[in-house]
Amino acid sequence: MRIAIDAMGGDHAPGELVRGACMAAAEGIDLVLVGESGRLGEELAALPKRPPGIEVVHASQVVTMEDHPLAVRQKRDSSIRICARLLKEERVQAVVTAGNTGAAMVAAKTVVGTIEGVDRPALAAVFPNHRGKTVVLDIGANVSARPSHLRQFAVMGHVYAQLVNQTDRPRVGLMSVGVEEGKGGEMLRRAFRVLEGTGLNFVGNVEGGDVYSGEADVIVCDGFVGNVLLKSNEALAGYLAALLRRELGSRWLGRLGALIARPAFAAYKRRTDWSEYGAVPLLGVRGGFFIAHGRSRAHAIQSAVRRAAEFCDADLHRRLREKVAELHSREEELLAPLGEDGADSPWDGASRPV
Amino acid sequence: MRIAIDAMGGDHAPGELVRGACMAAAEGIDLVLVGESGRLGEELAALPKRPPGIEVVHASQVVTMEDHPLAVRQKRDSSIRICARLLKEERVQAVVTAGNTGAAMVAAKTVVGTIEGVDRPALAAVFPNHRGKTVVLDIGANVSARPSHLRQFAVMGHVYAQLVNQTDRPRVGLMSVGVEEGKGGEMLRRAFRVLEGTGLNFVGNVEGGDVYSGEADVIVCDGFVGNVLLKSNEALAGYLAALLRRELGSRWLGRLGALIARPAFAAYKRRTDWSEYGAVPLLGVRGGFFIAHGRSRAHAIQSAVRRAAEFCDADLHRRLREKVAELHSREEELLAPLGEDGADSPWDGASRPV
Repeated sequence: MRIAIDAMGGDHAPGELVRGACMAAAEGIDLVLVGESGRLGEELAALPKRPPGIEVVHASQVVTMEDHPLAVRQKRDSSIRICARLLKEERVQAVVTAGNTGAAMVAAKTVVGTIEGVDRPALAAVFPNHRGKTVVLDIGANVSARPSHLRQFAVMGHVYAQLVNQTDRPRVGLMSVGVEEGKGGEMLRRAFRVLEGTGLNFVGNVEGGDVYSGEADVIVCDGFVGNVLLKSNEALAGYLAALLRRELGSRWLGRLGALIARPAFAAYKRRTDWSEYGAVPLLGVRGGFFIAHGRSRAHAIQSAVRRAAEFCDADLHRRLREKVAELHSREEELLAPLGEDGADSPWDGASRPV
Repeated sequence: MRIAIDAMGGDHAPGELVRGACMAAAEGIDLVLVGESGRLGEELAALPKRPPGIEVVHASQVVTMEDHPLAVRQKRDSSIRICARLLKEERVQAVVTAGNTGAAMVAAKTVVGTIEGVDRPALAAVFPNHRGKTVVLDIGANVSARPSHLRQFAVMGHVYAQLVNQTDRPRVGLMSVGVEEGKGGEMLRRAFRVLEGTGLNFVGNVEGGDVYSGEADVIVCDGFVGNVLLKSNEALAGYLAALLRRELGSRWLGRLGALIARPAFAAYKRRTDWSEYGAVPLLGVRGGFFIAHGRSRAHAIQSAVRRAAEFCDADLHRRLREKVAELHSREEELLAPLGEDGADSPWDGASRPV
């Protein structure tokens, strides 16, 4: 198993990327660092010890965070594009990038391509809760999703929950709102009917709070809703932590209590440290494609590589392909009567799923 | 100033509703309790002291939490419908309900009506952050919103931030995602252009995390996105608190530290206690209309009545009407060239804003 790292992408590239990669390589994972070979050589030389199993592949260009995602089409020798090409040519089994997410998505879709039966790849994030873990997808690969896309997300989430979260018969929920006549409009009702017909363990509509209730193991939504959900939750966790630190720090009894309860706070922090997850997979691509946070430092990159390795170990890509193919045969039968994907559908690409 | 309370709505009606109302009445706010007069009389009689300024108006029916929102049309003698009628007839200046939200919305729209220039009322929630407070709307009154609706939300949010949060020149942001080509599709780009032309202090696109960054004082989005945001954030705050309690409680040093730092934890809890807000206003209705959490107990109802009173004190309703009218004159000029509200627009009522 080999994993390619876009060593030039992210706020702390290439230094932290190279360090994170070496930490993962020391655990026995074979890696390909893609980027400007001179810079990468310097970074590697500066390390106390270069672990075995690290190869460098040169890329003369970089898609920066400020670049338009489509810049990846022009920058044919960019690190992210070369990563995608290595995956396409099966020289690696997965790619990890902390660079321009939009560009990564374009590279994944256009260079690597999607598996049969998946029109749009989806980013899947795992949320911990009292009853286990809930996978939410899409959290940002697509701003809109038609019922057929939500169905594909559901299938991919189902396989992910089974293989990665070890959930036996994942309960799949459709993100909705509870405060509206008819609960969400025509598109959501269509999506509901499509999901009912998948043969998955569909538990119906869920709400935003169910990400933490554990009422569903998989929740599907369009990437706009999922992205707002993920980013607001991340920010809230940070805000609450800062608020608690401030309240504890502003009183000497608070500081003393915090000192005494330090192991408990450390355990709490480990449980809520989002960088432990490292990266979210872009499901539906022909191979592993992992998007790490742009702010990732070495530890987060190491976690990201570990997740990519888990993905490969679990043979998630093959299982996804098989399960999608299995359900794909029912698709026309299911969707044709709804006219859901018809060219004259009033729900064009710009419209939303619900 | 008089405020009507739907005493039959919510999980703890009428007992907690009556108690909360009495707590608010003791602060000098005149109230009308609407509901089954026999039950309400018993609840009032059971209290140690009935404060002055509480009137009871009889309603023989109740729209339950399980009822379809449109049940409010049939149940003409329901407590929420009578509340709406009192507001319509200007016998009260505001309504507070913890009952069926959908039904409350239908009652507000059909019985009370919207102010001129507002097609759809919006629920506005206030999120605290390091730099102050951010108003997000809509958080659930409508599942979809066209650019013209988002413009109306922006105007209402602007007035709300000025009058309630005392923000001088509120910065208005458009909820978006940062990971997509073209950042959100055609509808979002249209909304962007419409917001640019409002004369408000429009700061452009923001992301989910900006609810807590304080980069904007007002954030507009459709009610689907806003509702998922609100509910997931509420659930996350609860989940993190439970997690911290568990980690502290599972070690004796943790329990000791928590005991010593108790005042700090209490201060933290007060700052993050969402029931202090009590209720969210449904902006754009001809009068104050406040939606409290279905789980509200007496304290939350008291807070809700206080907020309703603040709303009336600040003359928010008149200011909203004036500001909307001021911007309304520009609307046709702004929107006509975009064909935004045309009958043959591809974005019908079922589609989404972005």
